[in-house]
Amino acid sequence: MTQSSTLMLRETLDIPSAAERLLTHGNDAIRDAAAALRTQDPAFMTSVARGSSDHVATYFKYVSELLLGVPVASVGPSVASVYQRQLKLSGSACISISQSGKSPDIVAMARAARSSGALSIAMTNNGDSELAQVSEHVLNLHAGPEISVAATKTFVNSAISSVWLLAEFTQDKSLLAAIRNLPEVLEKSVQQDWSGFGEAIKRRQSLYCLGRGPSWAMANEAALKFKEICQLHAESYSSAEVLHGPVSLVDGGFPVLAMTAADAAEAVLVEVADEISALGGAVFVTSSRAQKASCLPVVRTGHFLTDPIAVIAGVYVMVEKIARAHGIDPDAPRHLKKITETV
Amino acid sequence: MTQSSTLMLRETLDIPSAAERLLTHGNDAIRDAAAALRTQDPAFMTSVARGSSDHVATYFKYVSELLLGVPVASVGPSVASVYQRQLKLSGSACISISQSGKSPDIVAMARAARSSGALSIAMTNNGDSELAQVSEHVLNLHAGPEISVAATKTFVNSAISSVWLLAEFTQDKSLLAAIRNLPEVLEKSVQQDWSGFGEAIKRRQSLYCLGRGPSWAMANEAALKFKEICQLHAESYSSAEVLHGPVSLVDGGFPVLAMTAADAAEAVLVEVADEISALGGAVFVTSSRAQKASCLPVVRTGHFLTDPIAVIAGVYVMVEKIARAHGIDPDAPRHLKKITETV
Repeated sequence: MTQSSTLMLRETLDIPSAAERLLTHGNDAIRDAAAALRTQDPAFMTSVARGSSDHVATYFKYVSELLLGVPVASVGPSVASVYQRQLKLSGSACISISQSGKSPDIVAMARAARSSGALSIAMTNNGDSELAQVSEHVLNLHAGPEISVAATKTFVNSAISSVWLLAEFTQDKSLLAAIRNLPEVLEKSVQQDWSGFGEAIKRRQSLYCLGRGPSWAMANEAALKFKEICQLHAESYSSAEVLHGPVSLVDGGFPVLAMTAADAAEAVLVEVADEISALGGAVFVTSSRAQKASCLPVVRTGHFLTDPIAVIAGVYVMVEKIARAHGIDPDAPRHLKKITETV
Repeated sequence: MTQSSTLMLRETLDIPSAAERLLTHGNDAIRDAAAALRTQDPAFMTSVARGSSDHVATYFKYVSELLLGVPVASVGPSVASVYQRQLKLSGSACISISQSGKSPDIVAMARAARSSGALSIAMTNNGDSELAQVSEHVLNLHAGPEISVAATKTFVNSAISSVWLLAEFTQDKSLLAAIRNLPEVLEKSVQQDWSGFGEAIKRRQSLYCLGRGPSWAMANEAALKFKEICQLHAESYSSAEVLHGPVSLVDGGFPVLAMTAADAAEAVLVEVADEISALGGAVFVTSSRAQKASCLPVVRTGHFLTDPIAVIAGVYVMVEKIARAHGIDPDAPRHLKKITETV
């Protein structure tokens, strides 16, 4: 490992190009799936995913609920794979997300959802995978090979696919324009300097990542990356939820990364960030509006639903640097391999 | 504070009586709500809750999905309170859960769900609360006054109300019998000796709580209690999910509390518990079937859907003891008050 050439760093810096590839090659599949979704007109949707992909599912859920008003239930794969129960999903749609398309529990749940009457749509970076084979519509992520254990560009492309599918469904022009502009914005996101936060978590073992609404999905993803790549115990909370108990962990210097889009939640998230700063936490927020917390520079995308995608790209670059600063090889996280297969 | 008389301890030991009160006084409300649910015959349900109550909602979700096959979407209160969007909920049912019935975001979301066409059912320990007022059906928890900051008996009674409502809906005789027997079982649960786990977390700051299916909801609750009452960074994961990244945090002696019912998930959870033991973790599991992990004694309830309720009662008693062993007053958790109101 040399300082400048970890796989994770290279793949993270490839995020803007990967997004461009998706936008170039993904159009037909998105259009077809959106048309099928319009025909199905689902009263509700379900999502099936694990790990990073499950955080994409959370993002998908917020986009669906805020853009379409259609609720999305995250379904535990165990319902099919362990308990072998069949859900009543007639007239609904099921979105399954898996970079590899290989985990047996995800495949089993996607298959069960389809046989229960759901329109099944898979997002995967492997168009030949078993998940792709059991699904009616496959959204290939076109991220290119991702060899690093950490999912980064596949995460970003899954998130773009999520918002693109639903923007195409609703024909939301301003959102579609923001999506088209993402590769350019992401070029700036991956160059951001968030080294102040890296300083704050030196000599700490625990931290919180906070978000609200669609940005909470990105807080989930950031927390997972801190754990798997940096061996730091980061946990994600909604900025409202953190006050219902978890704030008890905050002592002097407790690091908090608060993530927000330029949206209706920004003010309430910043308020909580300032409140936790007042309790002694070392709080950093992706907003320029904090009084007590430290403000991190951030690139906006022109739409509040795409903003979180630019934020997470910046987090990935920071996580890779922090791992190296802690003497950890980000390409060889402890106990992990690239594809995890669970039942 | 004296060693033998914290509020939390007294309220925890009151769990069996509180359950008895609910079963004695709650029947009419449960029957009426179950009848309304049968009439509505919802294609899907939503849940609205925060903190401990949101873990009850997760338990409700698994019971619904495993017993009825009806998916439940957890809805972020921010959709109504921050983003002011209306969900399409016609023909569905919305379960809102709040011990105090007072948090403005929960009340706003419950009100919005009802006005969107959902059958609205509230679970609260305060039958006069605003949440009760905006809901069509109110399931009073009958837990009696809960003064300790930690929700314990209100959590247990919300969980019992959840499974009772759905057992009454489906007229599941064996499940109804197990519910009737809960006060007797809970008497034994609160007397269990889990001091081995208390020893394992001495001099540690981080731990994982694991579960799968309905027991995962209890793992969520256990982790929150360790944080708010013991100032330990406990995080909850599905035993499948933990292998998709979080396991990277496990070093020699890393404590893990794995919670399971006597159900189809027990074998897969125990396998993961043994696997993490082999990586060096100090793993304890509420099962007698582990090879490498340590087995904790546990009382079973005669039905896999009620087993998790007995498990969490044992956790509460242990958490209170661990807090005192760490020199922390469980009645005065840092930064917290009993009722948290968020928007």
